[in-house]
Order: sequence, then structure tokens, then C-alpha cells
Amino acid sequence: MNSEPLPSCNWFGEAPNRGVMARGKRPVRSARVAECRVAIVGFGTVGRSVARILCQSAPGSLRLTHVCSRRVRRQEMEWLPDDVRWTDNVGELLSSDVDVIVELVGGLEPAGEWIRSALRAGKSVVTANKRLIAHCGPELLELAHQSGRQLAFGASVAGGVPVISALQDGLAGDRLWQVRGILNGTCNYVLTRMESAGVPFAAAVEEAQKLGFAEADPGEDLDGLDAAAKLAILARAGLRVQLGVDDVLRRSIRDVAAVDFLYARELGCTIRQVSRAEMSGGSVFAAVQPALVPLASPLARVQGSENLVIATGEFGGETVFSGFGAGGDPTAVAVVSDLVSLAKTRGNGARPAAPRAAREFRSDFFSPHYVRFTVKDRPGIIAALATVFSEHQINIDSVLQKPGYPKSSLPFVIAFEACSAAVLEQALDKIRPLEFLIQPPVNLPVLN
Amino acid sequence: MNSEPLPSCNWFGEAPNRGVMARGKRPVRSARVAECRVAIVGFGTVGRSVARILCQSAPGSLRLTHVCSRRVRRQEMEWLPDDVRWTDNVGELLSSDVDVIVELVGGLEPAGEWIRSALRAGKSVVTANKRLIAHCGPELLELAHQSGRQLAFGASVAGGVPVISALQDGLAGDRLWQVRGILNGTCNYVLTRMESAGVPFAAAVEEAQKLGFAEADPGEDLDGLDAAAKLAILARAGLRVQLGVDDVLRRSIRDVAAVDFLYARELGCTIRQVSRAEMSGGSVFAAVQPALVPLASPLARVQGSENLVIATGEFGGETVFSGFGAGGDPTAVAVVSDLVSLAKTRGNGARPAAPRAAREFRSDFFSPHYVRFTVKDRPGIIAALATVFSEHQINIDSVLQKPGYPKSSLPFVIAFEACSAAVLEQALDKIRPLEFLIQPPVNLPVLN
Repeated sequence: MNSEPLPSCNWFGEAPNRGVMARGKRPVRSARVAECRVAIVGFGTVGRSVARILCQSAPGSLRLTHVCSRRVRRQEMEWLPDDVRWTDNVGELLSSDVDVIVELVGGLEPAGEWIRSALRAGKSVVTANKRLIAHCGPELLELAHQSGRQLAFGASVAGGVPVISALQDGLAGDRLWQVRGILNGTCNYVLTRMESAGVPFAAAVEEAQKLGFAEADPGEDLDGLDAAAKLAILARAGLRVQLGVDDVLRRSIRDVAAVDFLYARELGCTIRQVSRAEMSGGSVFAAVQPALVPLASPLARVQGSENLVIATGEFGGETVFSGFGAGGDPTAVAVVSDLVSLAKTRGNGARPAAPRAAREFRSDFFSPHYVRFTVKDRPGIIAALATVFSEHQINIDSVLQKPGYPKSSLPFVIAFEACSAAVLEQALDKIRPLEFLIQPPVNLPVLN
Repeated sequence: MNSEPLPSCNWFGEAPNRGVMARGKRPVRSARVAECRVAIVGFGTVGRSVARILCQSAPGSLRLTHVCSRRVRRQEMEWLPDDVRWTDNVGELLSSDVDVIVELVGGLEPAGEWIRSALRAGKSVVTANKRLIAHCGPELLELAHQSGRQLAFGASVAGGVPVISALQDGLAGDRLWQVRGILNGTCNYVLTRMESAGVPFAAAVEEAQKLGFAEADPGEDLDGLDAAAKLAILARAGLRVQLGVDDVLRRSIRDVAAVDFLYARELGCTIRQVSRAEMSGGSVFAAVQPALVPLASPLARVQGSENLVIATGEFGGETVFSGFGAGGDPTAVAVVSDLVSLAKTRGNGARPAAPRAAREFRSDFFSPHYVRFTVKDRPGIIAALATVFSEHQINIDSVLQKPGYPKSSLPFVIAFEACSAAVLEQALDKIRPLEFLIQPPVNLPVLN
């Protein structure tokens, strides 16, 4: 009854039996259970976890055949089966019989060139490399397509949470117009520690570093570059727009202080680094920034290094995905899931849907805002500020001032009704030189 | 470079050009954009929403070509394009050139026989029919496989939340051992209304009926049959065990009273209808029952008719999926997503992974428990109860009694440390005849 040809013993559509017969050791099994031969390049935490899962569970007829590592010595990996070949030469994999190369080295180069060579050599590729996919994803996908192979990167965003396949496939029937999320575990750890224990920013960062959640140089995390790369990947998968990392507005969380959580709570909110991309009226807005979110929002409930993504569609409304966004094992689950999927479609899965249309990128957005001013107190400060905001047609919603701070360095907050972020910035530009400010205002949107 | 044959103009691998050429009207388009012809059987809320999405967005080259309905008259559906053929005869679809039949009639028969006939006639099938899939899923999947066609049922559980594909594919790299969820919107609506507004059970059910969340006969929802069918489907997808609906322990939510929410809150909990299936030590336990869940748990946060699923894996930990579990549009999104996926793999997607192993089913489980007694008060009641529990080696954790209730009908609660549910039932069997009880004890597990 099945008029499609059965898969050959090779999962990826090349000359039948090439690999299996060439080794001449294993019996040729029925076509349905043919092996998919996997090589891992990069044998850090994630690589080892992928290897462990492959060796323990062998899901989907996957077989680990090669590991390529320059830093790790094979002798340290006693648990690895004897028939896994160890090499420090990526070139050896390209001329081998592996079907899929798992790239876990990270960074733009040489990972990018390795992936290009692998695809050209007829290998499919699975990668967790968010930076590379964010910057070169469309080009690499095109190359994979031209080579008749596949490129999968489910592990590049939100670790173990299968959000890329959910956006691309699970919600393919909807017209998604917004993707929001908590995509950076370091920032979320820092902000939730400040929130729950009142830990100052610098101390929370240090804690995260000690626990291995933050890099020695945490700039990419704190200033939003890491999340912007992930957001670009998510926006392509979900909104089908070719968003680049540089199209994403970025604001650091470094300005957020413990006192902001106290004021936020008075407004029924907390503070999170929120990544969001949304389409409206034919244009796209994308940003990664600290923002106030209502305490009842799913965004507010994400604790520690967890990740969460909310996809909003025209038909299905909001769908929420959350789980462990980082760590060796969850990320390895995403890698192995991609491998299983590749093996299922025998490397011949469909090309991801093309972008809907070229879009304009907006840099402005409307929302309520929270601005904290820190001043040397004297009479007339509120009046001076209110005059500037009034000139810019910005409506003040409330003024919050907690007792107990010294007059020489007094923090207070103005909450604004929904206004243009750009116009608010213009007003703040006029305010920054005013002599009573002892540090620049801290401006956070309030997102619903 | 692509050594796989390009798809023919027919997405599903039958004789090339059969459909397109037979009609003789449309130009043969490039193979890459060949249409996937869709027929909808059953034109209620979901069917109309599927039709609207297909006509508005035409995702994945899907084209609605036929609608089969006995109840609805075509004249009432003015918005439907003229070239969509209307019929009241399912047989006409089987001999037509449609590629996929979307079954939205529901129920075991005649839907089951239609699906069997469709698969035998070389059509793939997409269905939202949880009852049929719960009862006959494995048989129908086998038939689909033998026929070289596909059967997809992403809409059968949790409506718009793409949880079946997430369990089967997105988390394929993990070894899932537990699936828990809030799978019945009616029960969750009723329980959250009792929780938030103190509405009595019967009134909350009536409200749900008025709002269209509950059927005229809500028994299938309240007594757990609906959720048990969904749980069976989820357990197959996630745990890969052949769980039948009858293997699921079921308890009605009818015994839960508004007062239980007050006592639950004293224990830091609320009450939800929780569906769960878990493997341990080679056996499977599955249940749908009202249970106490901690207020901080994702299960506690599900409001109204939302659905939520938590998958727990050996490697990736907990991954949470939530969104709108019912309603025409979200369910239609799930149907169309299945259609897009079928069109992508050209009806030739891989067979879902086989069950891991035959498993034993357990009917007992260990957990802390909450039992509410309603008594005609007199001295010695606690002592009488404590004696029975002590005889059964069950440890009491605390006794809660709120003031303000009449002595003639006094509710109080005993919270138990983790114990066997079966042993606790044995103890309660001894207690039920005691003369001071004015209604049977209400026994709810406390789940973490």
C-alpha cells in the first residue's frame, strides 16, 4: 500500500548501505531500524550529556560513532563505549560515514565554517550555537536546503524547552503576532535574587558567577546580547520575520536597583528582563530590556534560571512554554530531540516556512512607564519635572515615595500612563541636566 | 545534491498529478508548492474555524476542497469560497481527490468507521476526536501505517496547546517518566469559581453550563472520563505506554465543597482536578482525581478553562505547556498545525515511536492526604478516628478545625503524612459506619 520508497539503510538518502556495509561488521538490519550515525564536536558539559543520553537510551536508532575534541582527553572519558572513535580533527568527520554532526563548540568561527563544510559534505547538522544561528541562520538553512541536508537548532533557545519546534510546527496553524519571553537565565537569577532576598545587583551577579550561572564577563547576559540572539531566532521561527540581532532594541539590567522592586510591588508588579518581538500594522518591534510585569503574569512567576516563552496568535491566543533553559542535561535533551526528529524524517524534512514578507522595524513602542529619579531633595522638584512631562503631553499616573531615605539621596518614582517610549526619552533628555538629580533616571516600561 | 525524489504534485505519494490533472483546470505548479487538498467532515464550531483559517491563511499550501455536513446547510455559510464542494455523503470524499480528511464529528461511531475507510482509501486523517483516539488510537495508527498514510490527533488533547507534538518530538530526546496536567476545562472552571468566589459546587456547574463550558450532562467532565481519555493519549505520546482509559483510576470532583478550599488554603494549597500518569519501578500509575496542590505549583495557577501539562523527564526535568484547551479557534489551530505538518512531510512522516515495553498498572500510590470529616460533634471523635488510623500505621500530620460551624454538622480536616492510598481507604472503610459521621469522609491526595 505504501507507494513511497522505503528508506534505505542510510537515513539520509545517500547511496544505500554505504556506511553499514562499509564497516562490514554489523548485520544489515531491516530498513526501518537503520542506524543514524552521530558525531559530536565539542565535548564540554552539553557534549558529554548528549553522549550519555545516546549511549544510555539510543533513542530513534541513533548511534554515537565519533567524538571530536581538542581540549578533552579520551582517557578521562572511561564510560564512553570502545567503538566510539575519538579524534581532534574535524576534517576526519567530514570524510567519515557519520550522518549527523552535532556542533557544540559555540561562537561564530570556526564553528560556522565547520557547519558549512559538513553540510557541503552531505552531513546534516544539529547545533546549540545561538550566536551563529542568530547571525547566520538564514544563510546556513539555505545551504542545508541546497545540499539536501538538514540544520536543526532547537537547543539554541531555551535549552530543554522545545519552543522552536512548538512555534514552527506545533503552532503552525496559527498566525502568531507576538513572542515574549524570559530567555536569559543569568539575568533572571540576578533579578529574582534581588526581588526575593533584597540582594544588591553586584552581589547577585557575583552569586550567579559562583553558582556557574554567569560567565566571568557577564556583559553579554546583563546587557541583553544573549537574549537578543535568542529573540532573533524565536522571531524567525514564530513570526516568520528575518529579524537580525541588531534589529533588537537592547537595554541593560545594570541600572535596576533593589529599591525598584519595592516600588514595583506597590504597582502590583515585579521586574524581569523581558524579550519581546511583535508585529502590528505591517511592522515589527523587538526589544530586550528590564521591564515591570504584573505579579500575576506568567513572566513574573519565572524563578531563578528558568526560561519561559509566551506565543500569542490570532486564533489560539496565548500559549506558554517553560522549563529549564540551560544546563548540560536540558540542553542535551534539545539536541537529542533534534537528532530523533532528523532520524525520523531521514534528513529529508521540509524546509522551514519562508518569511512572510520583508518587514519594517520599529524602534518606538507605547506602554505605561515607570521612572525612578534619585534626587537631592528640595521644594519644587515634582513641579519642575511635571512641567517637562506636560510639555511633552505625557500624563502622570502616580507619584510614589517610600519613607526612610536620606534627603541627600532620595529615590522616588513617577508612573506614567501609556505613552511613546521615544517621546518619554525626549522628555528625560531635558530632565537629565537638572541640578537636583544625583544619578540618571531609571526608565522601565510596564508590560502587560 | 538532494538524492531524495522531489515530491510529486500530490503531497501524499500517490500517482503523480492524479488530482491536479484530473480536474484539468489548474496549471500544474512546481512540485515544491503543490497543494494539499483538505476535506472537513463535521461543520460545527471547530470545523468552521478550521475552514476560516484555511481560507484566510492557506498555510503550508493547504487548500480546503470539500466540506461534508448533514446538519448545516451550505446556504448558511456564505463566506465559504464557491469552489469548496459541499456534500452530505462521506463516501463521496473517499472517492474524491482529497489528500486529507479532517474528522470533526466526534464519538466512537460512525467516526471510527469513516476514519478506517479513509485510511484504506489512501487518505491521511486529522482528527480532534479524543474519545476515539483514546479507545482505538493504537489500532488506527497501525492501520494508517499499513496504508502508508498518516493519522494526526494533536487537537484531541489540550486544544491549542501543542502538547502531543511536544511530548512525541520536542522532548523525544528525554526519557519522560511523568505527565501531569489540568486537562478538563469544565472541572477547572468549576473548581476555580468555587475557589475564587466561594460559589457552591452546583451553582458553579450551572454557571459553566450557561457559559457553554459544560455539557447539559456534565458527567463525563465532572467524573473524570473526559480527562482520562486525554490522559491515555498523553501517556502514550509521552511515556510510550499503552495506557487504556480503563487503566486510569477515576474520582469525581462532585464531593469537593467550598469549605475544602478554606481548609486547603490553611495547608498552603488549592484544589484541582489533576490528571497524572507516572512510571516507576517498571509499573505505571494513572489517575484523574481532585487533589490538593500547593499554591505555588503551576497546577494551582491554571484559571478557568485553561489547560496545562507538565512533562517530567530524567534529563530535562519539568517542562510546562499551557494555554487555551478548548474553544473553536484554539482547537482549530491544533487541527491546522497537524495539517501543515502532514503537508510538510507529504503524508510520509515517521511512525510514532513504539511503546517502550508492556507495563504493569498500579492502582495504589503514596502521598500525603487530606480527609474532611463532617460530624455531629461529641467528645471522643478524634480519639476514635486516631485509633483506627494508628491501627493502620497511618500518621496524622495535623487536625484543622475552623470556627463558626454548627455542632450538628461540623466539618474538620485531618491531614496525613505520606501513606498508601489503598491502606488509607481500608481505614476509611472502618470509619464510614461510625455513628457520628453525618456524611462520608472526603479524601483528597496532596500532590507536590
